[in-house]
Amino acid sequence: MRKVIFGGAISLDNFIARNDGAVDWLLFSKEVGQIMKDMWATIDTMVMGRKTYEVAQRMGGGGDHPGVTTYVFSRTIKQPNTKSVTFVAGDAAAFVRRLKEEAGNDICVMGGGILAQSLFEADLIDELGFNIQPVLLGSGIPLFYEMSRQIDLELKECRQLSKGCVYVTYKVKHLKSRRK
Amino acid sequence: MRKVIFGGAISLDNFIARNDGAVDWLLFSKEVGQIMKDMWATIDTMVMGRKTYEVAQRMGGGGDHPGVTTYVFSRTIKQPNTKSVTFVAGDAAAFVRRLKEEAGNDICVMGGGILAQSLFEADLIDELGFNIQPVLLGSGIPLFYEMSRQIDLELKECRQLSKGCVYVTYKVKHLKSRRK
Repeated sequence: MRKVIFGGAISLDNFIARNDGAVDWLLFSKEVGQIMKDMWATIDTMVMGRKTYEVAQRMGGGGDHPGVTTYVFSRTIKQPNTKSVTFVAGDAAAFVRRLKEEAGNDICVMGGGILAQSLFEADLIDELGFNIQPVLLGSGIPLFYEMSRQIDLELKECRQLSKGCVYVTYKVKHLKSRRK
Repeated sequence: MRKVIFGGAISLDNFIARNDGAVDWLLFSKEVGQIMKDMWATIDTMVMGRKTYEVAQRMGGGGDHPGVTTYVFSRTIKQPNTKSVTFVAGDAAAFVRRLKEEAGNDICVMGGGILAQSLFEADLIDELGFNIQPVLLGSGIPLFYEMSRQIDLELKECRQLSKGCVYVTYKVKHLKSRRK
């Protein structure tokens, strides 16, 4: 079955952006470019919430990656689908569960926060990958929201990148009842 | 000048304990024992807030480490000092700033939360060390509280430990105006 992966660059205090969405503090390097390139090669689907979509659009992104289908979950966006972006008003977890059962490459959860929380709660996320930046932002948009249960992880890789960044990847240990 | 160090074991989502203070989820290993032994050898002073002190007391600790002086910051605790524990009612940052100017080994900040926040804000913390456990707790006692400014860090070490733990240490880049 295709995997659902979640991750990105975070501050050591687990923020993905400043309060205004700014990511000017992110350190980039050739290695990070290669990690992102490798990740893009494994996925054909992105899912994100409305807020992440709006930030991505402001930054000139917003889901237009060749060969990648993007689903944006929102109960409020009133705009037509585009060639590569489909707006979904229904339950995100049920939708992603169906996506996982379809044939295809991996599915990437962009952003974080509320969408990731609902997918974690539904035990739909399979792998995590974070580029931990050497900074405490102090405040901002959090990566993790509170969850009703503990998620156990298995470390896959831990690698020091240049500029003081640390790249860690984990497999999610799924609930036994849902294991196939 | 003696250094102020801050750290400990944390979940990947930055909690230091469950909501009730439980740390049953922590993974221990020989390497972790050695890291802690090495840390104890460099310090002669611990500082902590009232809540951490109360948790440590319940767990049979509470500041009685041979050769280590403990200061507990609290405006409310009404109990006499012991041989190794001194209760401090005044401003924690001012007190730690004076401690740093005295001769001695390094000073360790135990726990986290509000005390660490006030020491970070006052630019008094010099080094961080975290043992990142392979788990998302979902909720609990947070390591970091919101701060009014960004703290830039320099990665010193990143090391994979057994059982999927990751050990990272950082130097704090101090504000220029306070550099000596």
